[in-house]
Amino acid sequence: MPDYTFSHYHIILASKSPRRHHLLKELGIAFEVQTKDVEESFPAHLKAQEIPLYLCRKKADAFEGSLQDNSIVITADTVVWIEGQVLNKPVDASDAKRMLRLLSGKCHEVFTGVCLKSKLKTHSFFSATKVYFKHLSEDEIDYYINNYRPYDKAGAYGAQEWIGYIGVERIEGSYFNVMGLPVKELYEHLSIHFTTP
Amino acid sequence: MPDYTFSHYHIILASKSPRRHHLLKELGIAFEVQTKDVEESFPAHLKAQEIPLYLCRKKADAFEGSLQDNSIVITADTVVWIEGQVLNKPVDASDAKRMLRLLSGKCHEVFTGVCLKSKLKTHSFFSATKVYFKHLSEDEIDYYINNYRPYDKAGAYGAQEWIGYIGVERIEGSYFNVMGLPVKELYEHLSIHFTTP
Repeated sequence: MPDYTFSHYHIILASKSPRRHHLLKELGIAFEVQTKDVEESFPAHLKAQEIPLYLCRKKADAFEGSLQDNSIVITADTVVWIEGQVLNKPVDASDAKRMLRLLSGKCHEVFTGVCLKSKLKTHSFFSATKVYFKHLSEDEIDYYINNYRPYDKAGAYGAQEWIGYIGVERIEGSYFNVMGLPVKELYEHLSIHFTTP
Repeated sequence: MPDYTFSHYHIILASKSPRRHHLLKELGIAFEVQTKDVEESFPAHLKAQEIPLYLCRKKADAFEGSLQDNSIVITADTVVWIEGQVLNKPVDASDAKRMLRLLSGKCHEVFTGVCLKSKLKTHSFFSATKVYFKHLSEDEIDYYINNYRPYDKAGAYGAQEWIGYIGVERIEGSYFNVMGLPVKELYEHLSIHFTTP
């Protein structure tokens, strides 16, 4: 593991997402996973990056009062934003189909909000990536939903899955942000804001 | 596996790269790996995408006369292009260090040329992605080279490795192209050009 300036901290990742676990591990950070149940609702007037920023802070607030002196909890939330509306996780196959039809042949934005919280400090930031989908055929959409069941994914797709392989024409921004954790920004924010316990 | 229009072909991937094997597998294509030794030299006047296009065609030419009626061989070559010069695979640690210092804090381009060859037809294309690296510290460069030994990678880095996690600020284009195989374009070109045997 690299000798990070924040290495003396005990890092907690508050996410059930196996993709986030993988990304944080590849960043070379030792961590434990600890999640708390938080209702993922947000005020209706919030837009774009405001939504994941609100939700990641809400998830971090759930750790208020329970953090040790040398701990940092990392929370994150990812949303897909297209034509002024937010796409969260689809509730069923027809909802997933609606989302993929909406994304087909267009550019959308992926926003991930990340909150870093220690006993003394709370710091949050977000990352934005534009994703351009080619036109997706009905066969491609059906094949993907039936075989990959993307019900745990904002916008009903995983960029690292088959639909991302055949469907994503280009992105502008961080690929890892689209996967759910902007690791380069995370590394920088931890390095800058959490150098001393 | 999806029911591709080119499913009746026997696909050969002529690459030793485990990253390309992984990407083609995730695309849902059954294939076998078969490589031939080809000297990876090219005329000095070639620039940018001309280099990987020349090299992937050269690799495909090595299969001339040995392909069955229903076979397609896929060859690919990836180069990093920065400030009018090409970066291939580094020959040793100091060469890798030179490359990463050159990439640090700048934008470069990654070009992959892909050639698809059957008994009757040869078709090639390329994909281009811009990659923006943050400023890399000497410690970060040394840590990466010592721990990841990127001697099999054009430009001395893997976007899917630690240095890509902490170093890549943004990309413009295909992420999979940076990994060595533009899968969405590959899927399209196979679908369009190889529908009948």
